[in-house]
Amino acid sequence: MTRLLFTTCSILFFGSLFAQNEDSLLIRKIADEILMNGTAYSNLHTLTKKVGGRITGSPQMYKAEEWAQKALKEAGAEKVYLQECNVPRWIRGAKEEAKLIIGNKEESLAVLTLGNSVGTGSKGITAPVILINSFDELEQKKEEIKGKIVFYNYKFNPKFIQTFFGYADAVRYRGGGASRAAKYGAVAVLVRSITNSTDNYPHTGAMGYDNANPKIPALAVGLWDADKIADALQKNNNVKIFIKSNAYTLADTVGHNVIGELAGTEFPDQYISVGGHLDSWDPAEGAHDDGTGCVHAIEVLRALKAIGYHPKHTIRVVLFADEENRGDGGTKYAEQAKAKNEKHIFGLESDAGGFTPRGFSFILSKQKAEDISNKWIPLLKPYGVYEFTTGFAGADVEPLNVMLGTPAAELNPDSQRYFDYHHSPNDVFENVNKRELELGAINMAALIYLVDKYGL
Amino acid sequence: MTRLLFTTCSILFFGSLFAQNEDSLLIRKIADEILMNGTAYSNLHTLTKKVGGRITGSPQMYKAEEWAQKALKEAGAEKVYLQECNVPRWIRGAKEEAKLIIGNKEESLAVLTLGNSVGTGSKGITAPVILINSFDELEQKKEEIKGKIVFYNYKFNPKFIQTFFGYADAVRYRGGGASRAAKYGAVAVLVRSITNSTDNYPHTGAMGYDNANPKIPALAVGLWDADKIADALQKNNNVKIFIKSNAYTLADTVGHNVIGELAGTEFPDQYISVGGHLDSWDPAEGAHDDGTGCVHAIEVLRALKAIGYHPKHTIRVVLFADEENRGDGGTKYAEQAKAKNEKHIFGLESDAGGFTPRGFSFILSKQKAEDISNKWIPLLKPYGVYEFTTGFAGADVEPLNVMLGTPAAELNPDSQRYFDYHHSPNDVFENVNKRELELGAINMAALIYLVDKYGL
Repeated sequence: MTRLLFTTCSILFFGSLFAQNEDSLLIRKIADEILMNGTAYSNLHTLTKKVGGRITGSPQMYKAEEWAQKALKEAGAEKVYLQECNVPRWIRGAKEEAKLIIGNKEESLAVLTLGNSVGTGSKGITAPVILINSFDELEQKKEEIKGKIVFYNYKFNPKFIQTFFGYADAVRYRGGGASRAAKYGAVAVLVRSITNSTDNYPHTGAMGYDNANPKIPALAVGLWDADKIADALQKNNNVKIFIKSNAYTLADTVGHNVIGELAGTEFPDQYISVGGHLDSWDPAEGAHDDGTGCVHAIEVLRALKAIGYHPKHTIRVVLFADEENRGDGGTKYAEQAKAKNEKHIFGLESDAGGFTPRGFSFILSKQKAEDISNKWIPLLKPYGVYEFTTGFAGADVEPLNVMLGTPAAELNPDSQRYFDYHHSPNDVFENVNKRELELGAINMAALIYLVDKYGL
Repeated sequence: MTRLLFTTCSILFFGSLFAQNEDSLLIRKIADEILMNGTAYSNLHTLTKKVGGRITGSPQMYKAEEWAQKALKEAGAEKVYLQECNVPRWIRGAKEEAKLIIGNKEESLAVLTLGNSVGTGSKGITAPVILINSFDELEQKKEEIKGKIVFYNYKFNPKFIQTFFGYADAVRYRGGGASRAAKYGAVAVLVRSITNSTDNYPHTGAMGYDNANPKIPALAVGLWDADKIADALQKNNNVKIFIKSNAYTLADTVGHNVIGELAGTEFPDQYISVGGHLDSWDPAEGAHDDGTGCVHAIEVLRALKAIGYHPKHTIRVVLFADEENRGDGGTKYAEQAKAKNEKHIFGLESDAGGFTPRGFSFILSKQKAEDISNKWIPLLKPYGVYEFTTGFAGADVEPLNVMLGTPAAELNPDSQRYFDYHHSPNDVFENVNKRELELGAINMAALIYLVDKYGL
């Protein structure tokens, strides 16, 4: 497109933008502040490039906590402190490896050990492989599993338009597939990566064991290599896989939720929390998951302060210690809030990537959600948010809802690219767009302003 | 984000998705077809990687025409033909170069000659440089321009949320800056690239000369280097720039609009056109501009045919010969339609990138647009399109509106990333996401279906 028209539209645009309305003017001020002087993108650069991947219990976790305190102070938080929180300490160890063995031919496979998985021991495991498309098929073939590596090849369903539904549909093979296969004597599992990408990056993520069955190693494999295994099994009877994983788990250690506050002018002891989680999986930079959520939350505080907004309620930025592995950060925060009998007005999180925003999802009655939708969507629509849905909120703020009944919500960015990067070595700064990131912060700050002013 | 919840949402989602309504079912069928069997992404791969940049008059233009005919036949077009169209033939020549000269220090600058610009001659031009922030400033400093290179440093305004408005605001310096500077004796112009990117790629695009002033060379410079020049001018009095451009223009040549049809069952002589433009600037692959539009249009035809839909009106995919340079493709198509007294129901284009869709912009009465918005948005919203705006349509289908009064429209994808790539060497296949591309095609095919069924 090269045309130079647009004059008419430009006029229309300004006309609607500058409607003389206090709320829309204030939101425009927030937007201008973030678009002109925003620090979310440079903060993300530091977090991803200077700290890097920051799995709980790692040296990078502590480095990230240092960074977060500094960033919150620079953003203008009046009070910055740490909240102790036990966190798991799962360690990948030396890089895992896997090979597809057909007769005397060997080919490397792109794999990542799943979080919480046991390792294979130093010799690795070599075993025949059986392809399983679903848990139903596992049950049908239970007699054939013993001594084998189960390869779950369940595919990310492209028909879900919101990709999180595709994720929710497929992730059970990652989460519970190992124990279900171990029940029938499998020696390890390989899981097709939970992604709709077009590349071969493997995608890790949390898995868990039940107590009834042996703990066997579980690894994710990239899509091209998953197809390669499936293809080999169709053509050959004698297909084996070698895997070696050096993963192990140590005792829990102490991590911290990092908290920064902007004191409320009318109700300083009533809290609005806004956050992201500081931890990430280790093989990449944790850019979209959830570096963007952290810098979103910091930017909300920075922008509100920078435009001279004095919140009625205390605004708390909370960078949660552990979401990925056991969700300890959000649980600890809600437990402490409950123990201190704090009054929490609202909890908002960004943990679905730094992509262009489309909406917010609330845990709120449908009636209330409809009410605020009618009033607030017209204010947010110029910035890309056009719908409020209900049903879930950010995993770190949901405990506030469960334990204290606090209304909670999560930013809903466009989901098309999220699972291209999620939990893979490709979740890096370069895949975050500055403008998209800033639009997320604008809409979050606007929502916080509206909740602070009008309640929920 | 790692949590495994979503069960409730998943149910709600399916509930709304599969509302028992003929239109929503048919659109769901279109979506499934495109998401499961889509060829837009692989077509784009061929066009960008095997054909590449395809400026009018170039060998690649003819290669692109060959590709387009083949792709249309493979998509199921019943009739594929070429429509002759005169196109400009501007040639960049050997790679341009530029240097910032401060005293005896020289630094290379990332530049691209603007489309239609004259070259500098083989020796290049070395001259003092003057920084101009706006046309107002040019007028104020008109006495200081003579013998200098004018460096227009007008910045892409980040406050526009829809980036096309930022483009429209800044592009006048690219389009008309050379002649305005030549009027006061400038020997060349450098224009800050019309982009909100975070990199240093220069962005080309069309410029034009008036007849009253000498034709001087015009080049775009990358953002980092633009800032570097500005910085040098602040610190030094003796700043020169060397530019060398080998551009020249030959006489027009013959290109073609490539057309493929699906015959209407009730009104075969009434047409619905859907298109993109086949030409692109030369320094990259023309992925988002406008490879994605071409493969969108082809995919609309393919998907409608694949699901067994028999359109009432003839659906014509038109891949326009020239949009970038002089807009000859769209003009020729409308002229021919008028000359043949064809009845055109609707013209739709995709020429704003292959990003996640948000809406359509129509040239249509506000009343009519509101009517169809009320009826059709609920059908498209599950696929990401939530608003119909009015005011403009695709540059290639606007002539249909101007000459025949045909309602016209353009897909409005999310605009945040478009000008990162637009007209730069970075507009490559790798920056297109498969899912986002497919969602565009889904919404376009759905709109074509609705217009075919209900009219406009």
